[in-house]
Amino acid sequence: MNKGRLEAFSDGVLAIILTIMVLELKVPESADFESLLELFPVFLSYILSFIYIGIYWNNHHHMMHSVSKVNGKILWANLHLLFWLSLVPFATGWMGENHFAKATLTVYGAMLLMAGVAYWILQSIIIKSQGQNSILKKAVGKDWKGLSSPPLYTLGIILSFFNEWLSGAVYIFVALMWLVPDRRIERVIGEQQ
Amino acid sequence: MNKGRLEAFSDGVLAIILTIMVLELKVPESADFESLLELFPVFLSYILSFIYIGIYWNNHHHMMHSVSKVNGKILWANLHLLFWLSLVPFATGWMGENHFAKATLTVYGAMLLMAGVAYWILQSIIIKSQGQNSILKKAVGKDWKGLSSPPLYTLGIILSFFNEWLSGAVYIFVALMWLVPDRRIERVIGEQQ
Amino acid sequence: MNKGRLEAFSDGVLAIILTIMVLELKVPESADFESLLELFPVFLSYILSFIYIGIYWNNHHHMMHSVSKVNGKILWANLHLLFWLSLVPFATGWMGENHFAKATLTVYGAMLLMAGVAYWILQSIIIKSQGQNSILKKAVGKDWKGLSSPPLYTLGIILSFFNEWLSGAVYIFVALMWLVPDRRIERVIGEQQ
Amino acid sequence: MNKGRLEAFSDGVLAIILTIMVLELKVPESADFESLLELFPVFLSYILSFIYIGIYWNNHHHMMHSVSKVNGKILWANLHLLFWLSLVPFATGWMGENHFAKATLTVYGAMLLMAGVAYWILQSIIIKSQGQNSILKKAVGKDWKGLSSPPLYTLGIILSFFNEWLSGAVYIFVALMWLVPDRRIERVIGEQQ
Repeated sequence: MNKGRLEAFSDGVLAIILTIMVLELKVPESADFESLLELFPVFLSYILSFIYIGIYWNNHHHMMHSVSKVNGKILWANLHLLFWLSLVPFATGWMGENHFAKATLTVYGAMLLMAGVAYWILQSIIIKSQGQNSILKKAVGKDWKGLSSPPLYTLGIILSFFNEWLSGAVYIFVALMWLVPDRRIERVIGEQQ
Repeated sequence: MNKGRLEAFSDGVLAIILTIMVLELKVPESADFESLLELFPVFLSYILSFIYIGIYWNNHHHMMHSVSKVNGKILWANLHLLFWLSLVPFATGWMGENHFAKATLTVYGAMLLMAGVAYWILQSIIIKSQGQNSILKKAVGKDWKGLSSPPLYTLGIILSFFNEWLSGAVYIFVALMWLVPDRRIERVIGEQQ
Repeated sequence: MNKGRLEAFSDGVLAIILTIMVLELKVPESADFESLLELFPVFLSYILSFIYIGIYWNNHHHMMHSVSKVNGKILWANLHLLFWLSLVPFATGWMGENHFAKATLTVYGAMLLMAGVAYWILQSIIIKSQGQNSILKKAVGKDWKGLSSPPLYTLGIILSFFNEWLSGAVYIFVALMWLVPDRRIERVIGEQQ
Repeated sequence: MNKGRLEAFSDGVLAIILTIMVLELKVPESADFESLLELFPVFLSYILSFIYIGIYWNNHHHMMHSVSKVNGKILWANLHLLFWLSLVPFATGWMGENHFAKATLTVYGAMLLMAGVAYWILQSIIIKSQGQNSILKKAVGKDWKGLSSPPLYTLGIILSFFNEWLSGAVYIFVALMWLVPDRRIERVIGEQQ
């Protein structure tokens, strides 16, 4: 089994998720800037989710680079990841349309957490399939981003019951953490150790 | 004619089917968990259909692996399969939004049956095109899953007129039957024979 | 410039057109077979358009097979074709939801005609770009299907002002004409000549 | 990192943007030509945006042709471009449904300007990554179209506060400027210099 179709299929699903999210930005009926302003929370939630999908696509791209053979387990673990990511447009729309209400931040965080866990499962299955000299295992050896994300999502979920701003700040922080180029940070961390 | 474009086109259609299904999960207007709970049946039907599309993509992937030349008949048999699968979002949404009412389970089963028949037709045409030493024929020789699915769908359709739970159980059972890794089951069956 | 991306992009657009068409099959609110029956005209129009998109994908596949170099003119002629085909979901939905009313059949035929003309323009530009020994020119030399389709669409448009059934019959006839395998018909025609 | 997946992903997103735009052409409930006429402004805005997406796809195609290695910066600059282009369906729908009202032309122009800037950023990052003998730098050396577009978009935005027709004319002019084949114009310009 080759990995080409798995990559193409995942790319297709991620591209569609990215693009149908914008359908939640419903075209206002009046042609003034005020009606556009009402869409601002939806727009903000769209930006955040766009970045998250971008991060997942980027990471998926890297992870699959190390894979040479795809088996049934990898295939289904990949579909499991796509399942949780397919809920991003729903969670994003609910959060934006309800102006980042507490419950919507809980659900958004839960979706991020489940996607993070699904990504970790996929990664573990690939590492296991590669055996002792796994390339992927070496690459993610000091994967402090991957390791710290699920606890941070959990923190965001807990915070969402008390304060929507703190919760949202955690989700934005995780996104920025992934966005900042790896090498420089890793060098800094390397020097501190 | 090469099979690359047929695979890419099928992947594209399946990826879109998978992703637009989530549009049936309509964003609730109020931001409380109760309004989310009302979406639970739609969510359940989404999970079931997501798995079915995953199974079809997986099987399609395997079947096409054995194909080297694509002719017009294969191309149209493939489009015929995609036609029935394109109805999955409709059948799923109708079933979920009506809380698995009897009639919706009948239609869902009919759609699964037609897709199953279309898959069987595609498989038969490929086997015929490969001639006597068909690789695909050998591979599906003891294809007890493929053979038992249509009768099970038919059972689900008949049951849907009397009891929605039994009917739904059959559809879930068929999905799980395909999900469980092949080799182990085949070994068990091999031992029993 | 290679043709791979042009094929992939066209496949993507055609796959999406095919799949979003099904969104016009709006999920009925009540869970009985009667409400499903009301969707029957929409379903019929969906089948017809699904076949047309399948035909275009099939023909596009064949035409591109003969192309080795893509230039700017081919690229824009291809986008022009995709433009008219992108209107298929709209024309299909309008026709189905209004139970094949006269005006909707006029518009459906106009859309088919424009797509047919756009296809012919693309074909002509490719033949011109291939010079005197054009492979495509030889292949479509006796292209009686391509030549007879635009006049037939025009006939359908004219008939749509008088009788919706005759007009629809013409559109169905053209679709069937393309569906029936080439060789046998060409042999029959060859014998008659 | 290879550029294949980046191209495929971008193609996927652009193909979906192109196709979901047509969903703004909402199927009218009555089956007469008058109700179709009301959709004419939406149709016009669709044509304009279809051409713009076509231009971006075309240019992206050419730009990526010169790229051999993709790094993280290129990847995110590309996603940044796709972000602004993903807003095209929204801006198009708002403009069309409000019959090209002033505010909608401001927003449409702002979206075009941001996409233009994002394209320029992507181009600059690729040129920088290619070092001194950048192929792309040579290719866009006299890129008068790329250089004149952002000022023209800005002009269109300013004009949109006073007159919607002049503003729209600027956006149409920029699109036509890109549509007209390069060589002939460059020759004319070359002769004038």
